[in-house]
Amino acid sequence: MNLTPTLQDCELLDAQDPLRGLRNQFDLPPGVIYLDGNSLGVLPKTAPARVAHAVTHEWGTDLIKSWNTAGWFTLPQRVGDKIARVIGAQPGEVIAADSTSINLFKVLAAALHIAKADHPHKTKIVSERSNFPTDLYIAEALCKERGYTLQLVEADEIAAALQADVAVLMLTHVNYRTGAMHNMQTVTAQAHAQGILTVWDLAHSAGAVPVDLNGSGADFAVGCGYKYLNGGPGAPAFVWVHPQHTDRFWQPLAGWWGHAAPFAFTPDYQPAQGITRYQCGTQPILSLTAIDCGLDAFLAAEALGGMAALRQKSLALTGLFMQLVRTRLHGHGFGIATPVEEALRGSQVSLTRAEGAYAIVQALIARGVIGDFRAGDGGQHADILRFGFTPLYIGYADVWQAAEHLCQVMESGEWQDARFAQKNAVT
Amino acid sequence: MNLTPTLQDCELLDAQDPLRGLRNQFDLPPGVIYLDGNSLGVLPKTAPARVAHAVTHEWGTDLIKSWNTAGWFTLPQRVGDKIARVIGAQPGEVIAADSTSINLFKVLAAALHIAKADHPHKTKIVSERSNFPTDLYIAEALCKERGYTLQLVEADEIAAALQADVAVLMLTHVNYRTGAMHNMQTVTAQAHAQGILTVWDLAHSAGAVPVDLNGSGADFAVGCGYKYLNGGPGAPAFVWVHPQHTDRFWQPLAGWWGHAAPFAFTPDYQPAQGITRYQCGTQPILSLTAIDCGLDAFLAAEALGGMAALRQKSLALTGLFMQLVRTRLHGHGFGIATPVEEALRGSQVSLTRAEGAYAIVQALIARGVIGDFRAGDGGQHADILRFGFTPLYIGYADVWQAAEHLCQVMESGEWQDARFAQKNAVT
Repeated sequence: MNLTPTLQDCELLDAQDPLRGLRNQFDLPPGVIYLDGNSLGVLPKTAPARVAHAVTHEWGTDLIKSWNTAGWFTLPQRVGDKIARVIGAQPGEVIAADSTSINLFKVLAAALHIAKADHPHKTKIVSERSNFPTDLYIAEALCKERGYTLQLVEADEIAAALQADVAVLMLTHVNYRTGAMHNMQTVTAQAHAQGILTVWDLAHSAGAVPVDLNGSGADFAVGCGYKYLNGGPGAPAFVWVHPQHTDRFWQPLAGWWGHAAPFAFTPDYQPAQGITRYQCGTQPILSLTAIDCGLDAFLAAEALGGMAALRQKSLALTGLFMQLVRTRLHGHGFGIATPVEEALRGSQVSLTRAEGAYAIVQALIARGVIGDFRAGDGGQHADILRFGFTPLYIGYADVWQAAEHLCQVMESGEWQDARFAQKNAVT
Repeated sequence: MNLTPTLQDCELLDAQDPLRGLRNQFDLPPGVIYLDGNSLGVLPKTAPARVAHAVTHEWGTDLIKSWNTAGWFTLPQRVGDKIARVIGAQPGEVIAADSTSINLFKVLAAALHIAKADHPHKTKIVSERSNFPTDLYIAEALCKERGYTLQLVEADEIAAALQADVAVLMLTHVNYRTGAMHNMQTVTAQAHAQGILTVWDLAHSAGAVPVDLNGSGADFAVGCGYKYLNGGPGAPAFVWVHPQHTDRFWQPLAGWWGHAAPFAFTPDYQPAQGITRYQCGTQPILSLTAIDCGLDAFLAAEALGGMAALRQKSLALTGLFMQLVRTRLHGHGFGIATPVEEALRGSQVSLTRAEGAYAIVQALIARGVIGDFRAGDGGQHADILRFGFTPLYIGYADVWQAAEHLCQVMESGEWQDARFAQKNAVT
């Protein structure tokens, strides 16, 4: 497509898309082009009935015996096994539990234990300044507790920062602001060459891009259940630990669900073997039931080529949107923060603009095109208009329509309407 | 009632019970006498429709904007405010989030920060040997990290253990095995006299017995959402901190939801003021929606005398069951582990028996009388048959029928049937 693609071109691409049927697994609200699956994934069609069954039958009728009969007790592992298939891990290596922040605390605390034992002279955690803030906050808190220093660098300074005094490199695989993606295998090899453990946050990768935890040599990973995995609002997150590390140390959130025999009720902690020791307390079963439904869409995608096929479509969607921005929105002041090179980008496109980014997002939302806004820092990191392209349920015509709406919003000047200036608590 | 109460006596008590209408707020499975609300509370009638609305409308239709329009963002505070009314706290002092184990880690870590600053020579955490094990595991992990010693004592040794080297006294208010209750005000005063901070686990108190956090002088408290609060399986737990302590230190699970401005996305952590800093990551909204329904039953109870009236009924129910065990089950080898003195007991009755406790519980379950079994340690702490009496939905005739079934199970010898010997993963 050297010329600017037309709506008809895009409709043809949709008709030829071997993954187009996957969209039928979700309930998409009519009249909406939802480009925010990177923030909250859409509703799987199976979720309402499954959650209702969990509420009325498993909870309401069977009550406490559902821990056994409905398999509540093993749900974190069973959901974890489904997630494992999406992120290149083996069954038994992933637990679905708690929030991403809390899981990051678990693995970072464990990584520091290992680093302290193997390399007691190391004193630093390195991360990226534009990493998702909660990751930095958790690292900052642990550094305070353990006497480490958190060194924040820009993405292009990471390689140079991997010095002998670094214990852990903690990165988010796909940047939440720009959609820029690290090469997990290359960066991990660079880190390991200096005896540095790697902790990866897959919040914007799991279900969005192929991840190969087993193949990449990564040490620890966490990720989010409610974004590309379509697990529902605040769905439990997940945690993965390389099998060579799991049994070496406790993580400090050593609750009863991570005990070797939780129902023996012994007063001293004996950690379970393997990833189970990364559990802590009882998990929210209703929310775990919903994410189980979200993951089934990925199992259905496996017969159609799985994450490799989803990746191919994702790149086509993000590439198409960038092409439309370059050609149709030329002169409207937008920059593209997302890398053009395919190997360097996730499944979103982030636009920058010197002013008006928030209002433009709001004007698009008023038209049914749902993206979101992420504030910059007033300096190096600009305000961002963020558009996620989820290949499970977004089509080429959706991309074209989104760009068309953005053109109209800019050409009409409607984004300057006062009603779009007021910021909500959460956007 | 000096004579053994009859079923007719109990039916009369039910007819005269001013709280009897509260049972209609719940869906109780037919043919079941549910004496396990201390483990998993029953289904509030409003929950199926509320959760379905959260799934299909808030998530499915409104998607990301529900953070504002459905109030997801403030749900941990709003649910927390409802819990506050049940535990003697003020609005704004309680957050519903995460699991009890994780919340205990937050408050115990914060308490140790305060103790270190105020009394740097203190070296111990004291707790009860028969405290719920996850509490001990979390304390054990923190002691390892911070260089403290965890000293476990029996209940009658607590007062003597409160020496000058103790930093924190961590107790579960009502013991999960025996149902024995501490006097929070007295014990807290004893602790404070030695400069010791108190951390209370209200897992078996919140919604079961009156709790007066503000009046007792307690320093920190956590509790469970899925037991007497009827929040559904794995419902989010809660955390309370005395306002004099909240702003003194961070807790180490310093995630973005505890930040003063979570959507400013600044790389450094600035804790929110007050209890909000005890939040960490995104919460499971579907499960939070369910517990919100469970709490509404307590608001309805307020017009009928609230926790004081519920307590009066609870004591009558547990007293009745103990009376029936003493009179009708005499000679069947049961002991009563729960204190006879009303001020010392929670809302459950625990029976001991030298052998067969597990099989007897299973035989009762087969008859529709749901209690549970808690293993002893083979020594001082015997196996327990545990029966929770939730005054919101259990009546006097239920108690009589439960005792009747227990008589029949023992007199027929059916508990010795082989099918009751096999233990489930979770009981």
